Amino acid sequence: MIRLYHVPLSPFCRKVRLTLAEKRIEVELVEERYWEQSPEFLRRNPAGKVPVLKVESRLMSESQAICEWLEEAYPAPALMPRDVDARYEVRRLCNWFDDKFHDEVTSKLLYERVNRKMQGTGYPDSRNVKFGATRIKYHLDYMAWLLEQRRWLAGDSMTLADFAAAAHLSCLDYISDVDWDRHAAVKDWYAKIKSRPSFRPLLADYVPGFPPPRHYVNLDF
Amino acid sequence: MIRLYHVPLSPFCRKVRLTLAEKRIEVELVEERYWEQSPEFLRRNPAGKVPVLKVESRLMSESQAICEWLEEAYPAPALMPRDVDARYEVRRLCNWFDDKFHDEVTSKLLYERVNRKMQGTGYPDSRNVKFGATRIKYHLDYMAWLLEQRRWLAGDSMTLADFAAAAHLSCLDYISDVDWDRHAAVKDWYAKIKSRPSFRPLLADYVPGFPPPRHYVNLDF
Repeated sequence: MIRLYHVPLSPFCRKVRLTLAEKRIEVELVEERYWEQSPEFLRRNPAGKVPVLKVESRLMSESQAICEWLEEAYPAPALMPRDVDARYEVRRLCNWFDDKFHDEVTSKLLYERVNRKMQGTGYPDSRNVKFGATRIKYHLDYMAWLLEQRRWLAGDSMTLADFAAAAHLSCLDYISDVDWDRHAAVKDWYAKIKSRPSFRPLLADYVPGFPPPRHYVNLDF
Repeated sequence: MIRLYHVPLSPFCRKVRLTLAEKRIEVELVEERYWEQSPEFLRRNPAGKVPVLKVESRLMSESQAICEWLEEAYPAPALMPRDVDARYEVRRLCNWFDDKFHDEVTSKLLYERVNRKMQGTGYPDSRNVKFGATRIKYHLDYMAWLLEQRRWLAGDSMTLADFAAAAHLSCLDYISDVDWDRHAAVKDWYAKIKSRPSFRPLLADYVPGFPPPRHYVNLDF
């Protein structure tokens, strides 16, 4: 049995959940209040982060390394292209979202508005929120530019890059921080991802104290 | 011809330089003052970072995606094992150094002491320097623990994980921030890497205003 230690509104956990679900791998989800850094959790993962995937007695951390492992250990359906240059583009974009988008947007909006309250570390810093709200526009423009040239973010097939991006955007959509009307191409892309069976469990997530807006679960948003 | 836009004391650039050199790929190095964000550079790389690898007319960014591409496009000599679980471990450790070690150590020591002065953004923040100096001990202990069980960081063969780690440590060694006497196992590992022909160009790096200590270039340090 495979177990995933996660929190519902973590883009890194969501990327792994989507990858598991697309590959139809059964998984037991266990919520982990990682910020409390319980000794038991730190034993499982010295980096003190989620997601942590437990496969038999093996504990795995780092979402991108986990997803690459899932892709190699469970090759079907493929979430990476075969062509070497196309694979580079998938990895570049996963990193774009998990590093740059995370630093400029997710950490400035989601972590300020939700994580601070949940973890009891104070009120949102309005400068950060303002910065994130400005930067997300630039990122949505970049996605629209990519999607003008391609059916999916990294090329003409759906890949890990789409799940990395959708994982971040879905967390931000939970707190109504995505302007879907900015670009029809981005909205259409998200509608395609959102309607996949793998996405359903994410739409059922509910974080106490933070009820999602009605459009969050609607496939027609 | 392959060209790499880089700065000498960037661990991410050094990881790519080591990978190129191990695979005996000829490369033209071009120093890029990325923090000046010249329009020409931003056209090459919208993320505004180094390294950027130019292969024919193609521009590639994100060091880990570049290294994975190099591994797939130039398979020999292999810097990734073939076993799926062993490949996971390589990627986990690359991420450990490029994410956690970078945030806790490299950015707190190297960026405070060197990048601030070079980029004209003020004096080192002594709290950051103190934090980094404390955390590097924990990371060296972790490396020693790994090297007690393995010949190289990720297993019994030399991989990208060793280059990721050596790239960070070599930058810190340039400013005398590594206590090599803390663990014989770590010192022995670094001595093995340092004596490789691929490492020589890194030892010849010279940053004006920051002369390296004498032990930096010595193979017997």
